Amino acid sequence: MSKIITIGREFGSGGRELGRRLSEKLGYAYYDQEIIAEIAKRTALSEEYVQQIIERKPITSFPIHIGHSFYPVTNPMFQQSLNVYAEQHKLLQEMAAKSDCIIVGRCADYILRDEKPFRVFVYADVDSKLDRCMKRKAEDEHLTEQEMKKRMASIDKGRAKYYEFYSDRKWGARENYDLMVNTSGQNIKVVTQAVLDYLAALEK
Amino acid sequence: MSKIITIGREFGSGGRELGRRLSEKLGYAYYDQEIIAEIAKRTALSEEYVQQIIERKPITSFPIHIGHSFYPVTNPMFQQSLNVYAEQHKLLQEMAAKSDCIIVGRCADYILRDEKPFRVFVYADVDSKLDRCMKRKAEDEHLTEQEMKKRMASIDKGRAKYYEFYSDRKWGARENYDLMVNTSGQNIKVVTQAVLDYLAALEK
Repeated sequence: MSKIITIGREFGSGGRELGRRLSEKLGYAYYDQEIIAEIAKRTALSEEYVQQIIERKPITSFPIHIGHSFYPVTNPMFQQSLNVYAEQHKLLQEMAAKSDCIIVGRCADYILRDEKPFRVFVYADVDSKLDRCMKRKAEDEHLTEQEMKKRMASIDKGRAKYYEFYSDRKWGARENYDLMVNTSGQNIKVVTQAVLDYLAALEK
Repeated sequence: MSKIITIGREFGSGGRELGRRLSEKLGYAYYDQEIIAEIAKRTALSEEYVQQIIERKPITSFPIHIGHSFYPVTNPMFQQSLNVYAEQHKLLQEMAAKSDCIIVGRCADYILRDEKPFRVFVYADVDSKLDRCMKRKAEDEHLTEQEMKKRMASIDKGRAKYYEFYSDRKWGARENYDLMVNTSGQNIKVVTQAVLDYLAALEK
């Protein structure tokens, strides 16, 4: 069976960098943005659109209740979200079967629960995350610190809703992870080594 | 400045054993039950009574509100709880000043926040905790699994309330810890080495 590490993370906590560095050190495949591209190909939707769906929980349509029967109102947007999720589900299982891998985000800890992945969650305090985000933001972005804080909160809110919608579990709650790592004030390269050493000790 | 590691833990997760083993490996002082004994000595209350206070949030007395003034009803039980907490606060600061140490429970992560302790939280799934509790229970205890589960939940509820009462923070919520360790199905000796290796990597 493949070894799988899943990484959930707060926006700006360095979780993605941690995932990439772990994969380099361990020689595991690394999946993150690649997943979006592949789903886009398979569903014939644009990458931007798939990304949007994946970062937000779908807009549900409430079933209309008449007498004792339910008449669900079909909503094409909602249906598309479910298709993307189904495609993602299939894709993650294919990837996990193929080789040892590290998967960032995408409810992978939940979707692949039967393969018993090692589930990491990465978080940090607001100042550390803000600092990381302000440093790495693209040249053409002119967000103030206040705007960046809002953006950080909004992205995490989207992630939490998405996770909770599909998994019925609480995003970032300890019971869903094997190790939770606070990166506040830490260099991700150093944290990567710490996590590697933690994993190596468990396997001895 | 002394190096301090604080350990919060769910009942039955092996957090106390982890603390003791870490202290042996690191050569740090270890404080747990000793704190109770010392507070009992200083407050002239029995150890059992101090333990009881420390595991539950104090019974507050609601202030009676008449017109625009508040007349707090003084309640000797509540006052005693506050005395025990004040004594504990002083004691933890004395211990932290004296030498490198590991402190299990007692809101130490909050009380000693200015000394920047490394804050660990230890948790596990119910089955693992139940298994650990049933194995280690005293010979004269005849709790069934169901009763033990109830007891586990009740002790953790007490810890959460106590922590939240004194710190105004949420017990077991990730933002209050530097590392959160899931011990489900793990040997604590192995987890101890993993945490040691994690700490060593951060200090390199």
